[in-house]
Amino acid sequence: MSAPLKLGIAGLGTVGAGVVALLRQNGDLLGARAGREIAIKAVSACDRNKDRGLDLDAFRWYEDPLALADDPEIDAVVELIGGSEGIALDLTRKALAAGKPVITANKALLAHHGAELAALAEANDATIGYEAAVAGGIPIVKALREGLAGNRIARVYGILNGTCNYILTTMRETGRGFEDVLAEAQELGYAEADPTFDIDGVDAAHKLTLLASLAFGCLPDFDAVHIEGIRHISALDIALASEMGYRIKLLGVARKTDYGLEQRVHPAMVRTGTPISQIEGVFNAVVADGDQVDTTLHSGRGAGAGPTASAVVADIADLARGAAPPVFTLPVERLTRIRPAHMGRHRGAYYIRLMVVDQPGVLADVSALMRDHNVSIEALIQKARNPGEAVPIVFTTHDTTEADMTDVLARIDRLDVVLEPPRMIRIEAL
Amino acid sequence: MSAPLKLGIAGLGTVGAGVVALLRQNGDLLGARAGREIAIKAVSACDRNKDRGLDLDAFRWYEDPLALADDPEIDAVVELIGGSEGIALDLTRKALAAGKPVITANKALLAHHGAELAALAEANDATIGYEAAVAGGIPIVKALREGLAGNRIARVYGILNGTCNYILTTMRETGRGFEDVLAEAQELGYAEADPTFDIDGVDAAHKLTLLASLAFGCLPDFDAVHIEGIRHISALDIALASEMGYRIKLLGVARKTDYGLEQRVHPAMVRTGTPISQIEGVFNAVVADGDQVDTTLHSGRGAGAGPTASAVVADIADLARGAAPPVFTLPVERLTRIRPAHMGRHRGAYYIRLMVVDQPGVLADVSALMRDHNVSIEALIQKARNPGEAVPIVFTTHDTTEADMTDVLARIDRLDVVLEPPRMIRIEAL
Repeated sequence: MSAPLKLGIAGLGTVGAGVVALLRQNGDLLGARAGREIAIKAVSACDRNKDRGLDLDAFRWYEDPLALADDPEIDAVVELIGGSEGIALDLTRKALAAGKPVITANKALLAHHGAELAALAEANDATIGYEAAVAGGIPIVKALREGLAGNRIARVYGILNGTCNYILTTMRETGRGFEDVLAEAQELGYAEADPTFDIDGVDAAHKLTLLASLAFGCLPDFDAVHIEGIRHISALDIALASEMGYRIKLLGVARKTDYGLEQRVHPAMVRTGTPISQIEGVFNAVVADGDQVDTTLHSGRGAGAGPTASAVVADIADLARGAAPPVFTLPVERLTRIRPAHMGRHRGAYYIRLMVVDQPGVLADVSALMRDHNVSIEALIQKARNPGEAVPIVFTTHDTTEADMTDVLARIDRLDVVLEPPRMIRIEAL
Repeated sequence: MSAPLKLGIAGLGTVGAGVVALLRQNGDLLGARAGREIAIKAVSACDRNKDRGLDLDAFRWYEDPLALADDPEIDAVVELIGGSEGIALDLTRKALAAGKPVITANKALLAHHGAELAALAEANDATIGYEAAVAGGIPIVKALREGLAGNRIARVYGILNGTCNYILTTMRETGRGFEDVLAEAQELGYAEADPTFDIDGVDAAHKLTLLASLAFGCLPDFDAVHIEGIRHISALDIALASEMGYRIKLLGVARKTDYGLEQRVHPAMVRTGTPISQIEGVFNAVVADGDQVDTTLHSGRGAGAGPTASAVVADIADLARGAAPPVFTLPVERLTRIRPAHMGRHRGAYYIRLMVVDQPGVLADVSALMRDHNVSIEALIQKARNPGEAVPIVFTTHDTTEADMTDVLARIDRLDVVLEPPRMIRIEAL
């Protein structure tokens, strides 16, 4: 066996403590599989005296995480501080500049600075491992970079945020509303006190940026991602979706089209009975459509100490084996910059819900507007309840462009009989 | 870039021709991802003049595949001949002995000779890539060996045979019988003219042997696999399963227990709505339960030129990158020999269907026998049709040992009112 791989770990929160615990528990096995002992040499975190249920005495302690990059005894730095800027960025830059590989769970960091950091890694003969940054314990970075290396990927998509999937699943199972279920998720620890990054789709967009780069060999381009969250999803829409044979999931989708690269995060209807529709609760899943392999699905837990640590140590094992693949599948100079597709050019089917006054002629007005804008109705649910009162009209469309759809909805919204802004949810063809 | 990786390919059937076509189509991309050009130098197959829709003129042609192992210009041999003995075995031995890595889709070969061949590979500083041998295009060998390297696996199971899954799916969707659907599958090319290896579970058992070895770090032990196929699954059982909230799948399951390693291939009931229950038609799926990552599921096409070639070239790319992991995750000397578990000690729930004479007291007799043998009924369906005629009694049990279950069923079978041998299908807890 070769010399041990010596690690410095920065950040001892849930994931950092999980990595220390995993290496203590399964370190022998991991070392045997990697062909080399794996040893933590030093750690750094905010508070040395916090009780993490771990004995840290065997490790050198640094108050300043940046010192890990200077320690000549450390072969690689494990960055588990988080955040796209500040200390996580500084540490990653410094470690790479010193030729030390970095392993991280930090999706925000790489979504924003991936191109710069990949170039820095290459220039210093180092690598960045980020299996834990995308879909937690699911080994999807490895699958895209290595397992499906022979494929041209047409589309990669997935359920990338467990908090949102838990909320949407619970809403469907209980019929309860968004705010109510969010509050419960916060109590249970499935949602953060400030849940913005999760429920507004930003976290999923960070992950999608990395998936797109891996799948298409392009530079990560977070700013090009169209992002919608799940705040506006109502119990009514979820119930109506079920009735029409769909479930609502927050999807991240990256797709190559004739008009550029679509990168979008938004609630989407997926047909009930498809494998992805059955991914429930805090589970994540990623689907890759390759030209050779066709469709593959990879699912598992997207967060938590164990699953995330599992992904971190997979990268550590790769490092120990001497694997040093390019960060985004190709050398940085070969990564392309794919023109972002404008959402107006997106083509697909839609679910639309209107709240209208229950009176004769409403459906005729609405359907005339749709016909005049080339939007063709596929299915319709109209439930009369109280003449003169508000009732929902719900329909799904055949494929149409988002520009046409948006235009029609603006006109429908201006009809007097339409009482609320129309609700639109995209249907993802699987 | 380093020198090209030079390949010799033995066998140009569906998969071999698929590999040649893939390398022609996506070879540039694969080379870029692997950091090294990948070049086919020589091929060997039965009939040089057969029209495969491929131009083979650029490759050296060998009548004798064994000659590939002697060709000093060839860095690695791709064995796509098939069969556990004969030429495939001879070629693999010869190539490894010459220090040439072997990449193969041959599950039978490795299930029967894996230990010997892994040792031979190690002794000659070569490797064996067999991503294509298990679950076609799904990168599950890589996931178990590398992506989940930090986990102790408690159980690995899956739908490992697309022919069986196609037949069972079609039977459920159409209500048709086994023989009828098998004949159709043969016409459509989803089942072979001699379907024995598929429908009797042998093919799935080959794959399970390799999965178990990867998951548990043990020597492949095909002879220890308990194997049942799907010939006896009736349309009635599938319909009754649906009614009780289950689908019937041919599963391969490997599980560590207190009484040894269970390796079993048999039809199993899985709860409808679980992700694995939604894996339909020719698709395969593998689930791994790890102590850190919890449950992960990996699905995709289990056969066909494209998916299988996708897996073969993933191994080729790994080789080009210089990856040389131990064949079964650990060096051969560290692989354990885990005592096989006797099926009689298997503990789980069961589905039982009896055909009985519709007369008073039958249920009382049956349930008394079950009570006396500690088998506890969970749910029961009894549909009276014609007094004095045959009717089914169907029940599911709480967890019990297979020994107790077998014993009770033998006694039930001896009752005069029981008209056919009882049907038993295991329920897999997911």
